[in-house]
Amino acid sequence: MKHVVVIGGGLAGQNLVSHLAKDKNFSITLVDRNNYCFFPPLLYQVATGFLEPSNMAYPFRKMFRKHPNIAIRVAELVEVVPDKNTVVLSNGDLKYDELVIAAGVSTNYFGMKNIQDNALPMKTLSDALRLRNHMIGQVELASVELSDRERAKYLTIVIAGNGPTGVELAGTLANLQHDILYRDHPELKESTARPQIILVDGNDRVLSAMSRKTSIYGNRTMSKMGIEIRFGLFVKDYADGKVLFSNGEVIETKTLIWAAGIGGQRFAGLPADVFGPGGRIKVDPVNQVIGLNNIYAIGDACLQTHEAAFPKGHPQMAQVAIQQGQNLARNLRRKGDPKPFAYFNKGSMAIIGRNKAVVDAPYGLHLQGFIAWLTWWGIHLIFLMRPRNRITTFYNWVVAWFTKDQSLRMIVRPSRGKEQP
Amino acid sequence: MKHVVVIGGGLAGQNLVSHLAKDKNFSITLVDRNNYCFFPPLLYQVATGFLEPSNMAYPFRKMFRKHPNIAIRVAELVEVVPDKNTVVLSNGDLKYDELVIAAGVSTNYFGMKNIQDNALPMKTLSDALRLRNHMIGQVELASVELSDRERAKYLTIVIAGNGPTGVELAGTLANLQHDILYRDHPELKESTARPQIILVDGNDRVLSAMSRKTSIYGNRTMSKMGIEIRFGLFVKDYADGKVLFSNGEVIETKTLIWAAGIGGQRFAGLPADVFGPGGRIKVDPVNQVIGLNNIYAIGDACLQTHEAAFPKGHPQMAQVAIQQGQNLARNLRRKGDPKPFAYFNKGSMAIIGRNKAVVDAPYGLHLQGFIAWLTWWGIHLIFLMRPRNRITTFYNWVVAWFTKDQSLRMIVRPSRGKEQP
Repeated sequence: MKHVVVIGGGLAGQNLVSHLAKDKNFSITLVDRNNYCFFPPLLYQVATGFLEPSNMAYPFRKMFRKHPNIAIRVAELVEVVPDKNTVVLSNGDLKYDELVIAAGVSTNYFGMKNIQDNALPMKTLSDALRLRNHMIGQVELASVELSDRERAKYLTIVIAGNGPTGVELAGTLANLQHDILYRDHPELKESTARPQIILVDGNDRVLSAMSRKTSIYGNRTMSKMGIEIRFGLFVKDYADGKVLFSNGEVIETKTLIWAAGIGGQRFAGLPADVFGPGGRIKVDPVNQVIGLNNIYAIGDACLQTHEAAFPKGHPQMAQVAIQQGQNLARNLRRKGDPKPFAYFNKGSMAIIGRNKAVVDAPYGLHLQGFIAWLTWWGIHLIFLMRPRNRITTFYNWVVAWFTKDQSLRMIVRPSRGKEQP
Repeated sequence: MKHVVVIGGGLAGQNLVSHLAKDKNFSITLVDRNNYCFFPPLLYQVATGFLEPSNMAYPFRKMFRKHPNIAIRVAELVEVVPDKNTVVLSNGDLKYDELVIAAGVSTNYFGMKNIQDNALPMKTLSDALRLRNHMIGQVELASVELSDRERAKYLTIVIAGNGPTGVELAGTLANLQHDILYRDHPELKESTARPQIILVDGNDRVLSAMSRKTSIYGNRTMSKMGIEIRFGLFVKDYADGKVLFSNGEVIETKTLIWAAGIGGQRFAGLPADVFGPGGRIKVDPVNQVIGLNNIYAIGDACLQTHEAAFPKGHPQMAQVAIQQGQNLARNLRRKGDPKPFAYFNKGSMAIIGRNKAVVDAPYGLHLQGFIAWLTWWGIHLIFLMRPRNRITTFYNWVVAWFTKDQSLRMIVRPSRGKEQP
């Protein structure tokens, strides 16, 4: 029996594990720093209070309970020791026959310490909860602030990054400012301070990874929603409540959301030359890490360049991760030669606001507006892992749609004790 | 127009505010340290992962949105200045015509510093979330621990306090250990370390505030469920993973849940002699604080001794708080003489485990077992504040009942940043 150790239970890792588990010749240990998986495309809905974490997350142990050949280990990877076929984890060592790194990416601040310290990232479920608590807190502060100038800082939100995360957050927050803010806080109506959302990116259009047509629609729709779109600019610094743009402009705000950079995680023990641009781990067409025999990397963490359409590697998105996980599982089970990975593009999409979305489907098909919005919800509902998640999420969505509201605007934190790290 | 400031939005404060708000002669400011209210009897279900916070909590601003004469202020009370009819809050001052203190109680450690530092309280929603995260974490630690002796410490839970909180936690945790533990953690089956729940109290029976008959049934049922009940004992110390009992006995455990003491909060500015036993604020029959003209106290925070059946004050429970809130609202609105508070006992109840509960109803009626369990669920479902809470809670309960399981065993914390306190 072969022991496969999988580092990371994101979409790549989950798909690998569940396909591999059907084969009784494998025992699998899934290592993750959390005891749950979550569905990243719905993170912005947790951050904006439309969903609870449990609507889009699921415990690993329950997910894989029916497979006695899967073990779950809550730990962080400290070091890989390829010579000994061993990984050093934060709570012990593990021997492997095959090692799969599916550790995803983390937020990249490009070395800007102030931004790392003061901005709000949007990569993990914990980030989303922190963002939710932060933003509700800012509005509470605005409501007791007497100076209109100070108040404006609490109501201004700067979002760096024009990918789906930045766009979906900006759109949903704009809807909330429009539908909810003055209903919950009538006292703010008397102030001259107005809520404001500024989306900033070095690129020249929103959703620049999608089609031109889609981007143009996105730009126009977001401007109509009152979102200020600032392009060709970077955020250079953020301290003392002041965001500094690359053109020297300064915006005063208590909220900078950082959705502008991701980077790979470097693990000790792997040779330095396996790390390519963006910190991604270079792999061959069957996702084997270059120069290493029984170590693989899949998903956002890896860089694979054999496909002609993707000379700089695949886009770091859900579909690639899922398909690489499945392909590697098939290869590990296969007796003959492994099959190179071939990405099948099922399209991409993003929500822009209430009743508005964009879809780039295969074969050059574009959808926008309400029909794209329905498509988005349908597909995301199908992808939610478990019937339970689907039912409660659907219920939350229906309530939110009809009432233009949700009930999750509560600042709830676990209380702190000494024993917590 | 009279301005009423209400400190605390628990059951007493909420009921006062919603009754008073119907009268346009009042403007009301509700001050609470949280921006939401929650339903304390369901706290143990959040701690044990059967409910999400949003199933039993609700944002104040949304709750009172339809009443333009209610303002919400998220703040803590720092000081009362009776001479100036002013309260000093953590974020500013407020003038009042009438002040109502409905601040409830907080956990009392009776001066035992080690217990305060190391035990887990069970009073707030934040406490419940911390407890949930802690307990899931302990089982994860047990599953990577190699020594059986060490492992036992992670699987042993000591609960101090035999009131409803202690009993309901013990019962639910015993069910989880029985139904879930080995399903989620098959690796623990091979260990000789066994999960253990120890309920300790100075009293001689569980639920000692309820009827004798009920207590005896409770004792017997809990023993059958494998819960070790230790009476006539106090917890004296808890440090380095060792709980010390008053008889000198030591239990090694990583989890001491403290449900053994509550105490009133002392606010600066109130004369020292208004504070009675347990730190409760002494009030007259119409809930006016003794010696103070326009200051009232209601709910757990107050001590009212005019009723012959309660010479030492009413029990600190939900029904008293609700009724005092309603009575005070009526008195404030009434033109003539205020009506003294008269407690109508609607009974009390507690869950002991799956399908088992106890109810002491009025007129000496007792229910126990399944019928009491159904009564408990029905009444608690009715009391949940909003239809939305009811639907999602009911759904969670039905799923949990049929599957003997729930999906909320995830350790989710907001990530931390500099800006968080």
